Amino acid sequence: MIPVAIIGASGYTGLELVKILTQHPEFELVYVATSEGETTIQQLHPSLEGVVTMQVEKADASEVAKVAQIAFLALPHKTSMGFASQLLELGVKVVDLSADYRLKLDRYEAHYCKHTDTKHLCEAAYGLPEFYRNKIKESRIIANPGCYPTASLLGLLPFIPYIKKDTPIFIDAKSGVSGAGKKLSSTTHYVTINENIFAYNPIKHRHAPEIAEKIDELFVTQVEVNFVPHLIPVTRGMLCSIYMQLENELDPIEVLESLYKDEPFVRVRNNPVDIKSVAGTNFCDIYATMNGNSLFISSAIDNLLRGASSQAVVNANIICGFDETLGIPQLAYVP
Amino acid sequence: MIPVAIIGASGYTGLELVKILTQHPEFELVYVATSEGETTIQQLHPSLEGVVTMQVEKADASEVAKVAQIAFLALPHKTSMGFASQLLELGVKVVDLSADYRLKLDRYEAHYCKHTDTKHLCEAAYGLPEFYRNKIKESRIIANPGCYPTASLLGLLPFIPYIKKDTPIFIDAKSGVSGAGKKLSSTTHYVTINENIFAYNPIKHRHAPEIAEKIDELFVTQVEVNFVPHLIPVTRGMLCSIYMQLENELDPIEVLESLYKDEPFVRVRNNPVDIKSVAGTNFCDIYATMNGNSLFISSAIDNLLRGASSQAVVNANIICGFDETLGIPQLAYVP
Amino acid sequence: MIPVAIIGASGYTGLELVKILTQHPEFELVYVATSEGETTIQQLHPSLEGVVTMQVEKADASEVAKVAQIAFLALPHKTSMGFASQLLELGVKVVDLSADYRLKLDRYEAHYCKHTDTKHLCEAAYGLPEFYRNKIKESRIIANPGCYPTASLLGLLPFIPYIKKDTPIFIDAKSGVSGAGKKLSSTTHYVTINENIFAYNPIKHRHAPEIAEKIDELFVTQVEVNFVPHLIPVTRGMLCSIYMQLENELDPIEVLESLYKDEPFVRVRNNPVDIKSVAGTNFCDIYATMNGNSLFISSAIDNLLRGASSQAVVNANIICGFDETLGIPQLAYVP
Amino acid sequence: MIPVAIIGASGYTGLELVKILTQHPEFELVYVATSEGETTIQQLHPSLEGVVTMQVEKADASEVAKVAQIAFLALPHKTSMGFASQLLELGVKVVDLSADYRLKLDRYEAHYCKHTDTKHLCEAAYGLPEFYRNKIKESRIIANPGCYPTASLLGLLPFIPYIKKDTPIFIDAKSGVSGAGKKLSSTTHYVTINENIFAYNPIKHRHAPEIAEKIDELFVTQVEVNFVPHLIPVTRGMLCSIYMQLENELDPIEVLESLYKDEPFVRVRNNPVDIKSVAGTNFCDIYATMNGNSLFISSAIDNLLRGASSQAVVNANIICGFDETLGIPQLAYVP
Repeated sequence: MIPVAIIGASGYTGLELVKILTQHPEFELVYVATSEGETTIQQLHPSLEGVVTMQVEKADASEVAKVAQIAFLALPHKTSMGFASQLLELGVKVVDLSADYRLKLDRYEAHYCKHTDTKHLCEAAYGLPEFYRNKIKESRIIANPGCYPTASLLGLLPFIPYIKKDTPIFIDAKSGVSGAGKKLSSTTHYVTINENIFAYNPIKHRHAPEIAEKIDELFVTQVEVNFVPHLIPVTRGMLCSIYMQLENELDPIEVLESLYKDEPFVRVRNNPVDIKSVAGTNFCDIYATMNGNSLFISSAIDNLLRGASSQAVVNANIICGFDETLGIPQLAYVP
Repeated sequence: MIPVAIIGASGYTGLELVKILTQHPEFELVYVATSEGETTIQQLHPSLEGVVTMQVEKADASEVAKVAQIAFLALPHKTSMGFASQLLELGVKVVDLSADYRLKLDRYEAHYCKHTDTKHLCEAAYGLPEFYRNKIKESRIIANPGCYPTASLLGLLPFIPYIKKDTPIFIDAKSGVSGAGKKLSSTTHYVTINENIFAYNPIKHRHAPEIAEKIDELFVTQVEVNFVPHLIPVTRGMLCSIYMQLENELDPIEVLESLYKDEPFVRVRNNPVDIKSVAGTNFCDIYATMNGNSLFISSAIDNLLRGASSQAVVNANIICGFDETLGIPQLAYVP
Repeated sequence: MIPVAIIGASGYTGLELVKILTQHPEFELVYVATSEGETTIQQLHPSLEGVVTMQVEKADASEVAKVAQIAFLALPHKTSMGFASQLLELGVKVVDLSADYRLKLDRYEAHYCKHTDTKHLCEAAYGLPEFYRNKIKESRIIANPGCYPTASLLGLLPFIPYIKKDTPIFIDAKSGVSGAGKKLSSTTHYVTINENIFAYNPIKHRHAPEIAEKIDELFVTQVEVNFVPHLIPVTRGMLCSIYMQLENELDPIEVLESLYKDEPFVRVRNNPVDIKSVAGTNFCDIYATMNGNSLFISSAIDNLLRGASSQAVVNANIICGFDETLGIPQLAYVP
Repeated sequence: MIPVAIIGASGYTGLELVKILTQHPEFELVYVATSEGETTIQQLHPSLEGVVTMQVEKADASEVAKVAQIAFLALPHKTSMGFASQLLELGVKVVDLSADYRLKLDRYEAHYCKHTDTKHLCEAAYGLPEFYRNKIKESRIIANPGCYPTASLLGLLPFIPYIKKDTPIFIDAKSGVSGAGKKLSSTTHYVTINENIFAYNPIKHRHAPEIAEKIDELFVTQVEVNFVPHLIPVTRGMLCSIYMQLENELDPIEVLESLYKDEPFVRVRNNPVDIKSVAGTNFCDIYATMNGNSLFISSAIDNLLRGASSQAVVNANIICGFDETLGIPQLAYVP
């Protein structure tokens, strides 16, 4: 059993990490912390009462280093790199769920803030196993992708080799409200979003550069990515509808199947995908179809699992040389 | 008071027609029918108990002609043209909410079925007032647009003059469940669509040719329209997210405002639109923004009102020379 | 036209008052205020853009008195009595939507706070028209009932004459989230209440004494009232399920019909009631059935209309001698 | 590993049985059937694609007997007893999720239909482990309780010894829509129940006699049970609000804790319970409080798990002498 820690256990992704790690056959959750500390996990998350009982500490890197080999950071960006750099110096491997290690320095500083751990930034592996598996294996710091880039990249990357020159990609993403986190805002007030839907930060959302950077990194090709997120009246789940033009008509299901046939957590579907078939799991379900040279791709994930916590544990499995599927949720909540 | 009739009162759009027409200052609802008949409107729609009490007849064109000058048809396509042709022969003006008079003959027969009233088809005005006002004024048969084309066309038509040559339009439409009608299906079962979202008939939906035809008709330009409808867990309301490329960067709000500044039922918004601000009204709210040459347009309507029943009554107002806003709902249900 | 004012226009009930009063044939909305002021009504409520455009003032009783004959107060309790007492002194009639004038002094101070306008408290009429119509007519200060007491009292009062001696009443109330107001709280976060239901303040809720007091006042009988409110994942609407024991078996529909047959805003139903048939209206729909001596009553209202704003305007209609139904919403939003 | 079978795998409870049994450490799911057969489990339930792949047979008792020692029947009542009697004759133990073995003969025939397996009816143990554990251990036919009686009985049974003589119990139950099953009906149409709530079969629901019978059986006391189920806009989960009068005031939490302190699947809570804390688990969360002699109890379960499938597997664990918690879901889906 490898001892692991969670720093940032009060939010939704923290809760999901607790649920996965306490059931995992090879990880032992030995340390849980928040920035406040001094509580118990069942007080933070009453649904855990009688199932998981653990003290929640005030986060302290040196305490983590005494007991754990891997730390999962579910912290806000900026705070996260502070802990990550300390933990790495102390020899603890890090799976970071924040944005802090996802982008190259320039892009990060353009879209977030000044980076305070440039030393480790260049070492970080982007934790999308299907495309960065080998780099993840050798890294001690994993930048777990955001939910939007995860669903978008898994859907569109297979088609980058076929994209029509100089045409943009349009990503129309729809996210459940849990993606906005636990903090109170008028947007997440029930009355605002129930029976409603709206775009936010259209085209200017900071996930667009993350997606464009990874396309460039993997295919050495610069593509214009237009990303429009929408909030939908759903608790969890995310659907990305992706539109692009290809040089030639092709069978998109075949393209997907040839790339993903051996992937344990991508399911190529013959019909439009839905979020209920993946909510509760680490699966990304993908469907695609063409109209002439225009391609429509639909990809669905659980934003808190494949888009955060379960993908983080898959990355930890890879680091440790375990089977990627070990202890990873596969049974959807449906109905 | 002009006497009017509704044929097809059992569905959601029939109910909305009853509500608007019984409150209208210049129309008097004198005849209501369904294909079965022999009931009362308050039995069909228990919420009307104590407010509207009317006999519901078995639909009969000659009875309509005896009492009404205008008939609203809220019937399935194919059935609708049967009644419409009889009514027109008997001198009754028709506002048809079905698809039967929306398309040119070839397109109609390619996407629906054989047309049995080609005589009146060529007379029909497409009932989108902002673009077909003059033709509507002189017509006795109005093809009321579907909800998807209404929201799509109002959003994209202002930008057709600026579109980049040979580039497609992508419409990512999201509809509330009432758009699927009252009939039972596994798709409209609460457990299927609650906490869910999915595309259906992607790219192959028959509203794409309707949109393309109107673009061609108004701007004599052929544009590839890729239309992907999604079902969302919302009762009423529709949001269309439209993606296209323009020849040059421009101020899209200015384009919208210059075209719609005198339109009573289009509101150009400075922020992304939402469906709750229009649900319960005939408004179409529109927002647009650009990223380089890529344009994102967001347009929202109430699918049962602007997408069906209230737009139908606006068309009747135009036919009769009334102010277009007469008796038309403008106050959203929100919260 | 009688000039009227709204003080407290930023919340949900304030919005509903604006919608009703701007459509009312005999009231003219001349003054709208909030405690902050210096905005417009369409900025506070963007759905009103293009429909209602009015300046929103910083609330000032003497300004109200210059222009309006009746003021609707949609303010928090305590704040409300401050304004009400000033307005009354200045000759403005008041319909108060807060709790401040609903209870007798002792009860009020036991459940809320010290009362600072005892002078007018004893004059106040309880604004439940079906039972207090005559007193309302002669009053200049109306205490508009809360949503919970409105739905509860209309359901149970008809059966008080038949109640089994010394048996309690149990009220299981279910309220949509708009009843909790616009302020942010973890309870109204979408993720908390979506796919959920829970009781709050069970048995100890302060609406129980309000209900008990009115029973005592009307029937000179003291009944134990156990009131348990639940929050449900619905934006608007309230259902009260009431359980009590009667001395003898009787036909409860007959009891309801004989009492309410001439009431314009109570509909006695032959089947269990639902909230969608009343949402958007001032109706209270009621159904009742017995099992031996045990009675089940189900009553449904729109919590923001019959439970607040439209009932307030009915009370203003009564004060002014208008028909009670004048300008009052009767058409449900359904579907 | 004990080989087990599921007959009736197409519905929601069938799906939950598949999910639990394929993860169970001591049961091996060897046979799955529906009345139609000739499909695969992943076709019936697309979310299982890539996770569970099994042929689905046309149900045949003799085939079951060849391969399985225990059969779970998730069939409609009446159909179920047909299969159960055959299976029992063939030596297969049965956990029946239908109503067929829950009631004594007279009651069953009064509320359902003629019973065709009276031979085994008298042997059946009522599968509520907390109160029938010993009988379950020795039985070969278990009548798995319905969701309504499970939540109701666990909440109210601890207080039966203290009930005030000759006073009724009122149960106000709220069920998510999955409780109505997969079949299409106007009640389960999204537009009907979204943003709505209503009672159905009030006071006359056939779960009342089931509850009354078990009270009588366990405490030899006849109590009037008034049961009113409500449908709420939630997919899964059930909340029962129970009202009763006690002889004396007492500490209800103490009563609950003393009875349930060693129960693995009942959690006594100090605050009103909610369904999200139990959805996804076999837990029943219970809270209670008093007002004088009036008692309010609130109990919450997942209607498909504790109210059906996971309780069925707990019963199978008991039959086999396993730890009751073996393979039973304990981690709620929340958020």
